[in-house]
Amino acid sequence: MDKLQIVKIGGNVIENRMALEEFLTDFSHLKEAKILVHGGGKEATQMAEKLGIPVQIIDGRRITDAANLEIISMLYAGKLNKTIVAQLQATGCNALGLSGADGNSIRAETRAPKPINFGFVGDITAVNASLFNTLLAQEITPVCCAITHDKNGQLLNTNADTIASEIAIAMSAHFEVSLNYCFEKKGVLQRLEDENSVIPIINSSSYEILKNDNTINNGMLPKIHNCFEALKKGVNQVRIGSPKMITGKEIHTQIQL
Amino acid sequence: MDKLQIVKIGGNVIENRMALEEFLTDFSHLKEAKILVHGGGKEATQMAEKLGIPVQIIDGRRITDAANLEIISMLYAGKLNKTIVAQLQATGCNALGLSGADGNSIRAETRAPKPINFGFVGDITAVNASLFNTLLAQEITPVCCAITHDKNGQLLNTNADTIASEIAIAMSAHFEVSLNYCFEKKGVLQRLEDENSVIPIINSSSYEILKNDNTINNGMLPKIHNCFEALKKGVNQVRIGSPKMITGKEIHTQIQL
Repeated sequence: MDKLQIVKIGGNVIENRMALEEFLTDFSHLKEAKILVHGGGKEATQMAEKLGIPVQIIDGRRITDAANLEIISMLYAGKLNKTIVAQLQATGCNALGLSGADGNSIRAETRAPKPINFGFVGDITAVNASLFNTLLAQEITPVCCAITHDKNGQLLNTNADTIASEIAIAMSAHFEVSLNYCFEKKGVLQRLEDENSVIPIINSSSYEILKNDNTINNGMLPKIHNCFEALKKGVNQVRIGSPKMITGKEIHTQIQL
Repeated sequence: MDKLQIVKIGGNVIENRMALEEFLTDFSHLKEAKILVHGGGKEATQMAEKLGIPVQIIDGRRITDAANLEIISMLYAGKLNKTIVAQLQATGCNALGLSGADGNSIRAETRAPKPINFGFVGDITAVNASLFNTLLAQEITPVCCAITHDKNGQLLNTNADTIASEIAIAMSAHFEVSLNYCFEKKGVLQRLEDENSVIPIINSSSYEILKNDNTINNGMLPKIHNCFEALKKGVNQVRIGSPKMITGKEIHTQIQL
């Protein structure tokens, strides 16, 4: 099977123009078929403030009312996605931006309003592998923003980590898939205060220990949950590290079953 | 050759939610291969005002500085394009939104800064017919917003009428193309004050007369110029009328050589 690299970047890369340019150059140099998934960052909150729209965050998650969804669609699918696509085009990578509505690439359903009503937030129900295959066969690189749709006309705010893992799982029937979560650290750290204490490998049994002794907690838990789900469902390799990880020359954390 | 309908809609349809839904339903019912091109409308100006960004318009054209380009990319490629795509998906039309950067679909060069410096405004240099053919072959309907790129990382604000005619010209090598300009009137009017005085056919010789007696003037001149250019370069049919025109049951103006 051919190889496919799926790379997810978050706010820390997107908010720093130099870091983003450097990452996109590295990404465009990947020789394998590739898909980029990007989150949003703090700009959505800043834009809401500028426009006088209230932002409510519960447990670190944004409550997405209609006004906030509009801001997200403007920033994620508009400004950020098109800035990334145009920059990739400049590096010779034939990128094409997608929300989940585009080509029905990622379908979701609105999350149940209980126990917390997150508003227009989607849980993924289907990834259109056929569309991704069509684009990749034409040497087009899909660039996915963190928006899905319900096929009934409603756009939905959706976690970018989950989008990346669901695409990885769907594509693992067609490719040998490597899933790469890039964030602000060099990997999962043994000691938060020590940037270089990267844990090289986490597997199911060491994960239990790291959870129990509180080395891994909070926001890292759902991320690693996504990693294990991806591996269980056919994804070949899952890595967590800095954006430089994709060059293959940087330490990182490898997740294994 | 197979038929291809290219439909351009402008601000008047986009700004009215009911009108937009009605149009998109009609559009999704078109049985031929189809491409939608949409302009922006007044929302970009309103958003600039809300954000305290100055808007400068010369000869009815927006001066696109970096701050206004950002607003345009948010609204046109983000909010409007994704709203349209999600609504088309709900009607069963497999739409996929594109800026000119996406898949390098439309390449342009920044307009020369003299006699007027319009800023980040693009004049089209190449349409990627191969990409449109690939999408149409998969029964995907491209939905293009009025943004192009220069392949050097710069997004450019570009006239939607011209995007529609340039796509129509490029696709006429592969399809029997019908180009439809939808706007707020039922067609080109003999008397501006009489909504029903639609001129059924305008050809090169009647156009000269209508220009000379000032029946056609101002903003309609570049629109009809685009129509004639399209016909001269291989487009099969060009029509100007209301959005209802695409149902085939509404009077309109047909442009002929």
